[in-house]
This record gives sequence, structure tokens and C-alpha cells, in this order.
Amino acid sequence: MFRTAELGRKVSKRDFERQEPVLRQELLQIQQELREDGSFPVILVFAGVDGAGKGETVNLLNAWMDPRWIVTRAYGEPSDEERERPEFWRYWRDLPPRGRIGMFLSSWYSRPVLDRVFRKIGGAELEQRLERIVAFENALSADSAVILKFWMHLSKKAQKRRFKSLEKDPLQSWRVTKRDWEHWKLYDRFIEAAERTIMKTSTGVAPWTIVEGEDHHYRSLTVGIAVRDAVRRALEDARARRQLASLEKAGKNTEGGDAEDRTDTVGTVLETVTVLDSLDMGLSLEKPRYREELARAQAELNLLHRKALERGISTVLVFEGPDAAGKGGAIRRLTAALDARHVQVIPIAAPTDEEQAHHYLWRFWRHLSRAGRFTIFDRSWYGRVLVERVEGFASEEEWRRAYAEINDFEEQLIEHGTVLRKFWLHITKEEQLARFQAREKTPYKRWKLTEEDWRNRERWDDYAAAVNDMVEQTSTKKAPWVLVEGNDKRFARVKVITTVCEAMARVLGDGND
Amino acid sequence: MFRTAELGRKVSKRDFERQEPVLRQELLQIQQELREDGSFPVILVFAGVDGAGKGETVNLLNAWMDPRWIVTRAYGEPSDEERERPEFWRYWRDLPPRGRIGMFLSSWYSRPVLDRVFRKIGGAELEQRLERIVAFENALSADSAVILKFWMHLSKKAQKRRFKSLEKDPLQSWRVTKRDWEHWKLYDRFIEAAERTIMKTSTGVAPWTIVEGEDHHYRSLTVGIAVRDAVRRALEDARARRQLASLEKAGKNTEGGDAEDRTDTVGTVLETVTVLDSLDMGLSLEKPRYREELARAQAELNLLHRKALERGISTVLVFEGPDAAGKGGAIRRLTAALDARHVQVIPIAAPTDEEQAHHYLWRFWRHLSRAGRFTIFDRSWYGRVLVERVEGFASEEEWRRAYAEINDFEEQLIEHGTVLRKFWLHITKEEQLARFQAREKTPYKRWKLTEEDWRNRERWDDYAAAVNDMVEQTSTKKAPWVLVEGNDKRFARVKVITTVCEAMARVLGDGND
Repeated sequence: MFRTAELGRKVSKRDFERQEPVLRQELLQIQQELREDGSFPVILVFAGVDGAGKGETVNLLNAWMDPRWIVTRAYGEPSDEERERPEFWRYWRDLPPRGRIGMFLSSWYSRPVLDRVFRKIGGAELEQRLERIVAFENALSADSAVILKFWMHLSKKAQKRRFKSLEKDPLQSWRVTKRDWEHWKLYDRFIEAAERTIMKTSTGVAPWTIVEGEDHHYRSLTVGIAVRDAVRRALEDARARRQLASLEKAGKNTEGGDAEDRTDTVGTVLETVTVLDSLDMGLSLEKPRYREELARAQAELNLLHRKALERGISTVLVFEGPDAAGKGGAIRRLTAALDARHVQVIPIAAPTDEEQAHHYLWRFWRHLSRAGRFTIFDRSWYGRVLVERVEGFASEEEWRRAYAEINDFEEQLIEHGTVLRKFWLHITKEEQLARFQAREKTPYKRWKLTEEDWRNRERWDDYAAAVNDMVEQTSTKKAPWVLVEGNDKRFARVKVITTVCEAMARVLGDGND
Repeated sequence: MFRTAELGRKVSKRDFERQEPVLRQELLQIQQELREDGSFPVILVFAGVDGAGKGETVNLLNAWMDPRWIVTRAYGEPSDEERERPEFWRYWRDLPPRGRIGMFLSSWYSRPVLDRVFRKIGGAELEQRLERIVAFENALSADSAVILKFWMHLSKKAQKRRFKSLEKDPLQSWRVTKRDWEHWKLYDRFIEAAERTIMKTSTGVAPWTIVEGEDHHYRSLTVGIAVRDAVRRALEDARARRQLASLEKAGKNTEGGDAEDRTDTVGTVLETVTVLDSLDMGLSLEKPRYREELARAQAELNLLHRKALERGISTVLVFEGPDAAGKGGAIRRLTAALDARHVQVIPIAAPTDEEQAHHYLWRFWRHLSRAGRFTIFDRSWYGRVLVERVEGFASEEEWRRAYAEINDFEEQLIEHGTVLRKFWLHITKEEQLARFQAREKTPYKRWKLTEEDWRNRERWDDYAAAVNDMVEQTSTKKAPWVLVEGNDKRFARVKVITTVCEAMARVLGDGND
């Protein structure tokens, strides 16, 4: 794999000085267009052999372009705040928004490769971690990110030469450490792990470019040109897409085509029975028993949470359901049993403009709490496959791929040791109507009812179908969907708290999960 | 001070049960109005004697209101990411946006009081730290925040009784720790420090309410009612202000009043000579000497930054100046000497909607980097007293108080050990014209020139007056304004880098600052 990067390719100083000013201006120009276009971010990953010029190249790109619109990040040991979240949290929070460039050194590739080199993990675990990376990059790319990855290469001999020459230069000698020489001895292992990594993670949407690192003129131009071409192409694609979209729109308008006309009739007929129909919506709890069971469940929850805090085990809960299903009430019965200092309830409404400038999962990653805390989402990332699907805010391709993205996200929470439960609070269509009408009559509850609620109601069956698919696609053993029969609020609240207790007990206690 | 809080006031269970449902509904209602109004945040601080019910009260308020719109925070030992920034960074990042409520336990008051109790600091230092708090709260309040602070009190005897009774209850005994008893022995010292604290920090805009903590019915109603009334009053004020503003606007429109008519003529005549006129705008550097000096300065900067990284000393630089003054170019010469991994350049343009929902300093606090890094602001918090003042985006009261707010912010950076320099890159009006014209002619630079640039140019003298005041008000020994003669770009760039080197050397080296 690396043979071609040991050919000794060079660019003469003269050639470099001729090409550099042109390339530089082109890069600046493209960066400016990227900002103006604002429809996608650019992610550049740099990895490779030490001494092959990763850092220098990143610095040069920063010097060639306008550093104000570039985010450059390198990662050492995680901070304690990072350690308390899943591994990828630190990368998610540094992702550039649309219109900007992010450069990543010792990125998400660094740990898996080094862990393999030092035999902390076996080949199978390496593969698994590379799959995680592929899923991450696929998700970003599907959301329009341009991803380029550069492997800066040096042969073992060349690396030795490079270290020796740096050591001789008094201004550069600090760059070579004992650790570098130790790593050098493991060169072959390193290359082996790297080869595997590149092989598994060079995808159509996030390809690796192997760059011969010995001649700095050659490597700088190679990387610069690759960046220029990729961004240029992406800008052209973005423009073409927009043109096409506006043409299509114009065409539709003259044809009088109906945007509503997109339902798949056969599917609709087939899917009339959904998982929601299997619920026994008559389940209820009498008031005295409710009081008793609620108090018991809340006391248990309180105890479990104190235990979880001590052990640093976090809990993430998701609440979804039709309007007026009682999500807010159920959440309040939950939080009443918890210490408010260690709980955050995140209501999900329209994204802010900062959130809009990122992948749709970004705004959930950013809310993950530190170790031991409760994070409760009132509506969640499932909006993508529910309201966004039903209302057509997300394209079919977008919501279809969201299942895999969501599963991957939740898997990371689980692997980190987080307790995760997802509640679908269900009510029947009749019960919803009754609750809407009651809200209309109660002055201080009237604000809760909006035009939108009535509109959503008309789409009841579409939502039921979406819920059915969602449960099918994303209910896993460790992160199951809990369907809650919600016509009786008392029954629903107790079921929610009891379920959370069971889930926590399993992870904390002597359970055999 | 605490005598009135040891009177044994009580509310009977019956009275509580009669009042609670009403208060609860009022609080919910008010919380809803607060969200809809969206023009100010509410900040509730809870402090006091252990066992006096701080935590319980916060939990109760969370249960009474809708926890989705409340942020509750308590602070233990700072995380490493917090330790690497000034102390108040952790509080700034948790502040609630407009329309929401933030509840703070063991807040910014906890450390000064405890440090004083344990004699880690003397009385004079306590006073200083309380002044910092007053400045913080004043700034938030001036930006519309409603701030209420509750001191939950127990007499020494009552605290003992409370601990004993908690210890007897198997479900509560975990609440009482060894540390609590140790603290109890220091009760008198604690009360002394608390008294001083309350005396110094109970201001008109952020008053302390001392709450007798023994009877939980009494304390819950007292706090709940205080919150209800304060928020209600603030909502009324906000409405009245809006009405007044729209009346005034209507009045002005019919009178044909001119919004431009607000310049103070006497001031304008007097201020024609500004600090900028004292600059020798003829300063320049020939190309060969420039190259040499730039290279030397960059090499020194690189060395100093490596030293700073090792020692964890951060650098914050601010760049301001007229359009086309060469800020971007100067910043690029700086970053070219640095390792891009440890630098962030923050371009300040219009705030995002999340930023808009906070105090104007919030968006600068959030960008402070971890230890040892460079943070370079291309335009900055000084926008408040420059463009916002000149264009009338900030009211006179707002930009006038900004000087003190800015000085306080910068003082915190300095105290944290950060190197801070502020550059005003100056050019003459003629030079600006020449650069605008050159930009118009160069295709790939044309985007840099906007209508706004021409409009700003018309306000040249207003800006000069604003700069004069800004330098006068905010140039301090440790955080000086550096006025850079920018007609010659080469001279300016070298001066900037040299200045940064000197500042860093002073903090890092054998300097005697």
C-alpha cells in the first residue's frame, strides 16, 4: 500500500515557488466561496508517520488560507469532562459548521491505531473501532460534509534520516522525543495497523490520499491541490443541486403538481396494523393504588440515582408521543424523585441557527451530561424519523439513513455504560380529542394547544406508520423502546418510573444483563 | 443580621396545603409568561446553613414549575477544563438564556465564604472577591436579568437538631456527613463570613432574602412567593417598557423627529483631537529590513509560545481597527509563527441566536481556550463601545457601563495569568480610500468591500471619538491598548508581533512586571 509513497518524488524549489502563489490564491478564493455558499463543512484529517510533515502541512494550509474560518484541532489525553462522555463526544463538539474548514490531527484514527500497535487491542477490536469511524464519517458525509484524509508517509529509513536531521538543528531538535524513537522501533507494526486502517476506512465519501512525506514541496502542493479540487467540485455540485431544485420547483408549479401526492398507496394499505394497535389501552390505575405505587417507585428511583451518581453511571431518557400524551407530566413525576442538581431536562423544539449549521445529531451530542447525571429529552433525535419524515422536512433518503445513524449513536452511549430508555407515550385518537377539548376550556392550559397540534392530528395514521418503523428499526436489547399505554395518566407515570428503575437496577445491581 | 431568621416562624400543614396549589399554578403561569416574553432570564441563588433546606427548596421549585425550562446547577471541585480558565468561566457557561430560569446552588458565593471560614483568605481578600461578584451580578442585571438570592438560615442549635433528626431517619441519614459536623463546629466563623458577604453583596438589583429554614412549609412558601412576585413585577416592567418604546416611536414618526439628531455638538467640537492624532502615521519599514525583522520576531514568538504551552499560560489578543486596516494580514503573520493546533482565531460578526439570548460578554467567555493556547479575536467585545455605540445599536447607558464590564472581564483574564494585548490597527482616512479603491479593482479581493464599509467611512470622526474614549477607559497597565501605525503594513505587522513577544516574555521570563 505504501510502496508508491516511497518513490522519492520531489518538486524543485523553483517549481514550488512558481506554483505556490497561484495555488494559494485559488485556495483563498475557494475558502471565500465556501463561506458564501455555506451549505457544507470541509473536514480534513491528517495522519501518518511521525516526521512526515503532518503538523507542518496543517500549519502551511493555515498560512495559505484565512485562519479565521478554519478550526484546527489535535487531541491528546482526554480531559475529565471528555472522559465522562462517549469517546466521540470530543470530536462532535469540535466539528466545523457549514461554510468552514476543520483540520484534525491525531484525530479519531490515532487511538485505534496506537492501541493496536501496542497490542492493547486485537485485530477484531480494531475492525470494530474502524467500523465506528466509517459510520461516523458516513453520517457526516451524508449530511453534505466534504471529507478528505491524508496519510503522510515516510519509509522506515527516511523516518530515521528525518529524526537525525531534526536532532542536528538546534531550533528543531525539541521536535524529536524519546517517544519518537520508541515508536520508530515499532515502525513495522505501525505500518501494518495503518494499512488495515486505510483499507477499511477509505470510502467513496471519505477517501484516504497517501502522500509521500519526505519532500516538503511535493507534499504541500499535493495536499493543497487535493483540497482545492475537492472543495471546488463540491461547490459546483452544490450549485448544480440548487439549480436543479429550483428548476424542478418551477416545473412543478406550472404543471400544478401536488406536493401532497407522495404517499405510497400500497404501503398505506398494508401498514394499517401497527405495533401501537397491540397496546391494551384500557390499562389504568385507581388513585389509591397509584399514590402508593408512585411513592414506592419514586423512592426506589431516588436510591438508584444516588448509587448511579457514586458510580458515575449516566442515564439518558427519551420521551416521544402524540401531542397531549402526557410527556411533560410523566417527566415531572420522574424529576420529582431526583435531585435537581443532577438532572437536565432538554426540551427539543426548532434547532437554533448554530445547531442548524451542523449534522442533526450534533445538538444531541452537545447536551450529554457529565458522569452520573440524568439527561431527559422531551422529544429527541427521533424527530428525524417522526415529524420530519411525516411532514416531509427530511427527504426519504435522509430519514431512512437516520435509523442507522441513531443506532450507532445509541450504541456509543451504551458502550460508555449509560442507561438508555426510550418511551413512546401513547394515547388513542379519541383520548387526544378529549384532552384537546379540555385544554381549550382551561384558561391557563390554553397556551399548550396550538394550530399545529390540530394539524398533526390529521396525520395520525402517518405518524402511526412512522412509529411502527421506528420501533422496528431502533428497538434494541440494550436500548429498547418502551411503549406506554397512556390513556390513563396514572398508569403511564408509574410504568415509566418502574421501567427506569428496572433498567438502572440491571446496570447497577446484581442483574444479569 | 440573622436574628429575624431565628424566630421560629411556621406555617401549619393546613395553611400550606391551602396555599400550595394556588402558588404552584401561579408559578407555572408566570414561567410560561416568562418564556413567551423572552426578554430576560431569571437567576436564583441559594446559599446558607447546611441542613436549612437549600437543596429541598430547589427540588420543590423544580417540582412546582416545569423543569424543562429550568437549569439547575451546583458546583463541586472544578473540572480540569474549568481550572484552565478564569474562575467565573464555569458560571458564565451555565447562565440561562432569556426566558428561562437558572437555579444555582453552591454558586459563586460558596468558595469565597468557605475560603474565609477556613482562613485561606483574609478579610481584605474576601472583600475583593465579593466586589467581583457584585460586578458580575450588576452586569447581568443591567442586561435585564432578574436576580434573587436566598440565604437559608438555621441557628446553631437548630442545625444540630436537624442533623440529629436526619441521622435517625434511615432514608435520610446519608445526608449528614462527617464534614457537616466539622462545619458545624465552625458555625460562628461561618456566620461571620456570611454576614459580611450578605452585607456587601445585597444590592438593589440582586438582593438577598434571608429565609428562616427550620420549618419547610414556611421556607417553601416564602421562596415561592418571592420568586412569583419578582418575576411578575419584571414581566410587567418589560411590558411597560415595550409599550413606552412603541409610543415614543409613534410620537417620533408623527413629529418627523430625526434619529440621526442625537450627536452632542459641544462634545463633538471639543473632541476633535483624539489619541489617534498623536500617531506618527509616516512610520514604515523597507522590504529587506521588514523580511529580516519579521523572521526574527516570528522565530522569537514561536519559542515563546512553546514555553507558554509547557507552562499553561494562555494568550488572548484583540484586533480592532477601521475597515481595510490590515487586521487579517497582521493576524496571519502572527499565526504563521504558531502551531495551528494551539491557536484559534475567532472572527466576530453578528451574534448567533444563542448568543443573542445572553449578556453580550457571554459569547466571548465561551471562546476562551484551554491552558497555553492562543485565542485571537478579529473584532471583539469592544464592538459594544465602537460600532454599537456609533451606530446606535447600544443605548448610551449600555455602552457607557460596558467599560466597567470589560475592565472586569479583562481583569479576570489577567488574574488567571493570561497574557492580554489589544491592538488598534490604525490607518488614515486617505489610506483607507486608496485601499478601498484597490480592492474594487482586484477581482478576488472585491468581496472584501461592502456597502457597509463605505457607510462606516462616513462616520470616521465618530469612530475616532469612540476609540479615544475606549483607550482612555480600558487601557490598563496589564491590559494596554497598543495603537499601531498601520499605513505601512510591514511596519504594523512587525510591531504587532514584537509587542506580543514582549508581553509574553514579561510574563514567562525574568521580566519584572
